[in-house]
Amino acid sequence: MSDHSYPRYSYQVLPREVDLTKRVTIITLGDYILHAAGEDADRIGFGVNHLQEVGNSTWVLSRMAIEVDRFPAEYERYTIGTWVGEINRLTTTRNFILHDAQGRQFATATTQWAMIDMQSRHPLDLRENVNYAAALIPEPCPMDRPAKIARIEGEEVETHRVRYSDIDFNQHTNTMKYIQWMVDTLPLEYLTERGLRRLDINFLHETRYGQQVVLHRASTDSADHFEGVLLPDQTPVCRALFTWCK
Amino acid sequence: MSDHSYPRYSYQVLPREVDLTKRVTIITLGDYILHAAGEDADRIGFGVNHLQEVGNSTWVLSRMAIEVDRFPAEYERYTIGTWVGEINRLTTTRNFILHDAQGRQFATATTQWAMIDMQSRHPLDLRENVNYAAALIPEPCPMDRPAKIARIEGEEVETHRVRYSDIDFNQHTNTMKYIQWMVDTLPLEYLTERGLRRLDINFLHETRYGQQVVLHRASTDSADHFEGVLLPDQTPVCRALFTWCK
Repeated sequence: MSDHSYPRYSYQVLPREVDLTKRVTIITLGDYILHAAGEDADRIGFGVNHLQEVGNSTWVLSRMAIEVDRFPAEYERYTIGTWVGEINRLTTTRNFILHDAQGRQFATATTQWAMIDMQSRHPLDLRENVNYAAALIPEPCPMDRPAKIARIEGEEVETHRVRYSDIDFNQHTNTMKYIQWMVDTLPLEYLTERGLRRLDINFLHETRYGQQVVLHRASTDSADHFEGVLLPDQTPVCRALFTWCK
Repeated sequence: MSDHSYPRYSYQVLPREVDLTKRVTIITLGDYILHAAGEDADRIGFGVNHLQEVGNSTWVLSRMAIEVDRFPAEYERYTIGTWVGEINRLTTTRNFILHDAQGRQFATATTQWAMIDMQSRHPLDLRENVNYAAALIPEPCPMDRPAKIARIEGEEVETHRVRYSDIDFNQHTNTMKYIQWMVDTLPLEYLTERGLRRLDINFLHETRYGQQVVLHRASTDSADHFEGVLLPDQTPVCRALFTWCK
């Protein structure tokens, strides 16, 4: 199957999206991957705005993984190709392949979603949805699935109060903000010299404006493992695994 | 003079750029205003990359003011028109008018810059630069100039450590991050109900990765006044005045 069987969305790295290496940050790349997911969901008739209006349902992101060979530089143009890759009873997979302007693949991503009823908050059976099933493209997932990340007993590295600039229109924390909070606790040279190879994230619980999240971190030779827990009851909200190139 | 005498740059409000009112944030609007300034400076041959390479000089933003009648909604397209409006010995003014897709003006901005020598850090005399003088468009400034904001003795509201996600490629704090830190200390209803009418900012001193900035705030009936000072010596780094619609 040709790699043009799925749509590709075009973006460009803006000056405010690069870090001190003059390359796009993982946070921006994750934001645009989710933006492409939204654009493509709109295209196939399953965008959140539409779902919420007509179906009283919405998407919830449960896992995400991103693998990066090269972070594009300021002003570089790139595309994000995306497709629905798998439909199970309670979850569906959306995959992504990122190409630069020369057509070279530089990153891949995969995400796992549930569709929930907005009143009951229960997941809906996606196999029963014939229109959604029609959107599936039987292209293999371009990378290992997002890891299920275990609890950690790491050092407490930061307490973050959820602020205005963290939240979306539902007053929930924006997905990539958890990653930003984690990245902001890391030594600068991890991002500029060691280099991020792969990021796995598990989203476990939503957080809201004004709540406090404590971040724990445990490090190994090749990876940093994070868990965010909500105060005061220590409910886990998010876990992530940063795997470094060196 | 027609309002088409200056170039206009086109943008669109992305989902991740809106707040809980589903309208673009002042932080995003400020970022795009500065982005348009950069695009237009590149066009006239005075972009920072070019200045730093060939002239060993760079731009420093000293003041900024933004007035907003209406914040565009998610997915709205808008343009930012911008031009060099005034050239003095040590500073130059760049103005902005923002229009929505229907051609209605919804915001204005004005900024004051110095061009400095990168070694000596001294400002250069802009009147001597004939190529820069040629870029001037004698269109009046669309609003009152940015206020010179006095010292304040307000309450201490936050201490912020400058992080990875705050800094640009020079490891200096990104311009609009100061505003984000301030906005994040305000009650949510200021942004969603009172509504921002005008923002004045004075940039006094650069801050770098790892430094700590203490924010002070003083409130009046119609405005909130901020000052950020660097620890440990209390050097003022930024002052801002948020004026509310009600």
